Amino acid sequence: MSSSFLRRDPVSGRWVIIAAERGRRPSDFTFERQTATTMEAEECPFCEGRESQTPPELFADRVDGGAPNSPGWRVRVVPNKYPALELSTVGTPVRSADTDFFQSMPGIGSHEVIIETPDHHRTLTEMSDEEIVRVLNVCRERMRTLREDPRIRYAIVFKNHGAQAGATREHGHAQLIALPIVPDFVREEVDGARAYFAGTNRCVFCDVLREERAAKDRVILEHGQVVAIAPYASRSPFETWLVPKHHGAAFEDAPAPVVADMAGALKAVLERINRALHTPPYNLIVHTAPFGGGDAESFHWHVELMPRLSRTAGFEWGTGFYINPTAPEDAARILREV
Amino acid sequence: MSSSFLRRDPVSGRWVIIAAERGRRPSDFTFERQTATTMEAEECPFCEGRESQTPPELFADRVDGGAPNSPGWRVRVVPNKYPALELSTVGTPVRSADTDFFQSMPGIGSHEVIIETPDHHRTLTEMSDEEIVRVLNVCRERMRTLREDPRIRYAIVFKNHGAQAGATREHGHAQLIALPIVPDFVREEVDGARAYFAGTNRCVFCDVLREERAAKDRVILEHGQVVAIAPYASRSPFETWLVPKHHGAAFEDAPAPVVADMAGALKAVLERINRALHTPPYNLIVHTAPFGGGDAESFHWHVELMPRLSRTAGFEWGTGFYINPTAPEDAARILREV
Repeated sequence: MSSSFLRRDPVSGRWVIIAAERGRRPSDFTFERQTATTMEAEECPFCEGRESQTPPELFADRVDGGAPNSPGWRVRVVPNKYPALELSTVGTPVRSADTDFFQSMPGIGSHEVIIETPDHHRTLTEMSDEEIVRVLNVCRERMRTLREDPRIRYAIVFKNHGAQAGATREHGHAQLIALPIVPDFVREEVDGARAYFAGTNRCVFCDVLREERAAKDRVILEHGQVVAIAPYASRSPFETWLVPKHHGAAFEDAPAPVVADMAGALKAVLERINRALHTPPYNLIVHTAPFGGGDAESFHWHVELMPRLSRTAGFEWGTGFYINPTAPEDAARILREV
Repeated sequence: MSSSFLRRDPVSGRWVIIAAERGRRPSDFTFERQTATTMEAEECPFCEGRESQTPPELFADRVDGGAPNSPGWRVRVVPNKYPALELSTVGTPVRSADTDFFQSMPGIGSHEVIIETPDHHRTLTEMSDEEIVRVLNVCRERMRTLREDPRIRYAIVFKNHGAQAGATREHGHAQLIALPIVPDFVREEVDGARAYFAGTNRCVFCDVLREERAAKDRVILEHGQVVAIAPYASRSPFETWLVPKHHGAAFEDAPAPVVADMAGALKAVLERINRALHTPPYNLIVHTAPFGGGDAESFHWHVELMPRLSRTAGFEWGTGFYINPTAPEDAARILREV
């Protein structure tokens, strides 16, 4: 049974995950500050041939079939060794009360690692479009499986690249977290998009694309069915959104040609960011519609990419309000011209 | 005229500051990653005797009077050299439309640096309670001045300590940002507290304190009129809130004995955090009520302190949803016992 819980802040209503199972002692934090990337190739459990060093796999893309947890895979999904949430958690995701005053719910969900390649040193920009498509498709497969569980309301796929972006392993990997609630920032987008649709009968993301493609100054590139923009209200320098041209709410249900163009667009944008900004650390996140289908008309799936060029400091953390020293028009121009 | 603007994200409604005046080139970011703390004592413009190296001071605590921008001060306030917002900005903080679709407003506000001490190497835990009170009182003085400007709706005082917490100078300083809107996270607290008050006729922070002092397991310490707790829904390990026992909405209007106890509590908590966690970098932020007086009954000023022990990664950034590996009950116990 998991020892993790979701807890609600009684003032703001914000939910957090208290994953005490990851339970660290103060000495662990000291270590973490000194060395974020802990696993070199010699002892990396994500490398082909070391399958027994991870928890048993949940899914793998194997070109010739082959036994689970053996070599021969192209993309492999394993549970996070220190999961923030687990499907085996006993209980239902109903708000319970720790006391009359404080609310919590059991930490039901899933926390998975998507190992992008058997090769320790291969990064996204070194992979072919086809290889990136395979990674995206494995994520989509996991999402379609997880949404069958009625306790799961949302799944988020994200990637931390580089120690300064929070990666603790060098070997290329993404993560998937499935949740019993829709997280705050996604909720803000979902609610904003619903309100816009209610007022206009149009998708706000479709309208953003129409405006941006007309104005041109924040467009970084177009790659088939996908447009990359520096969003009008970018939170940080060189923030990039990759948005499919045609409306679709769910990443996991997107047509194969759109996924292929997303892979190509992602690679093209990352190559430009690497050239312009000297291969910075970055975070990448997929925003899809909440499970359940209620947002099919108003929501529009997309990928958000944020190079980590400066540290988020006290002001941003304490206010949720970002100061961005680089106008998105400048960022888009630099990435177009590089 | 300032070249900074507030812009509204058309999807989520989130506002950001685009401070293009800080306008950095890609090469600046490379530099920033290499060396965050740029100014050593030999050339620090915050040190006594180098007053001419900052923009002209806005306020100073001088024990014997003395001319502005000369030595002899105890606490000194100067404009940030690269301000995110400026009071001299032309225009009114009314939402204007860049196009029919995108909304912005001029970057009216103030971005100030509070130099805590003339001594380059003196940190908060090395200062006397009286010295910390002076710093808090200078912040309060600036807030009372700024709230007289009808364009200013909120002011936030915060401190980044250590390069990993976003500090770019070693010399002890806090910052103040005055804004034409109430930032998101404060708005969430303000709205949550208003809703709670509407339903109960009680302040939610007063009730949090009552619950925490009864349960005891998340109380770190009490220092006179101030209680330090590890909040029930802590976002990160060893997050600490310092809350006055008696209700009061505005930091800038708090009675002198409460400010004195806040200074003492802050110092006592920082000493414990330094002992338990090996003097980590931290962010500190003061949450006060929005200017205008509408929240006198429902809001309750407090200080939030977050040691920076792990990097905020893609999941947190993309979702607003925090995974905290240390239960606040454990954090409070460790800080009580250290």
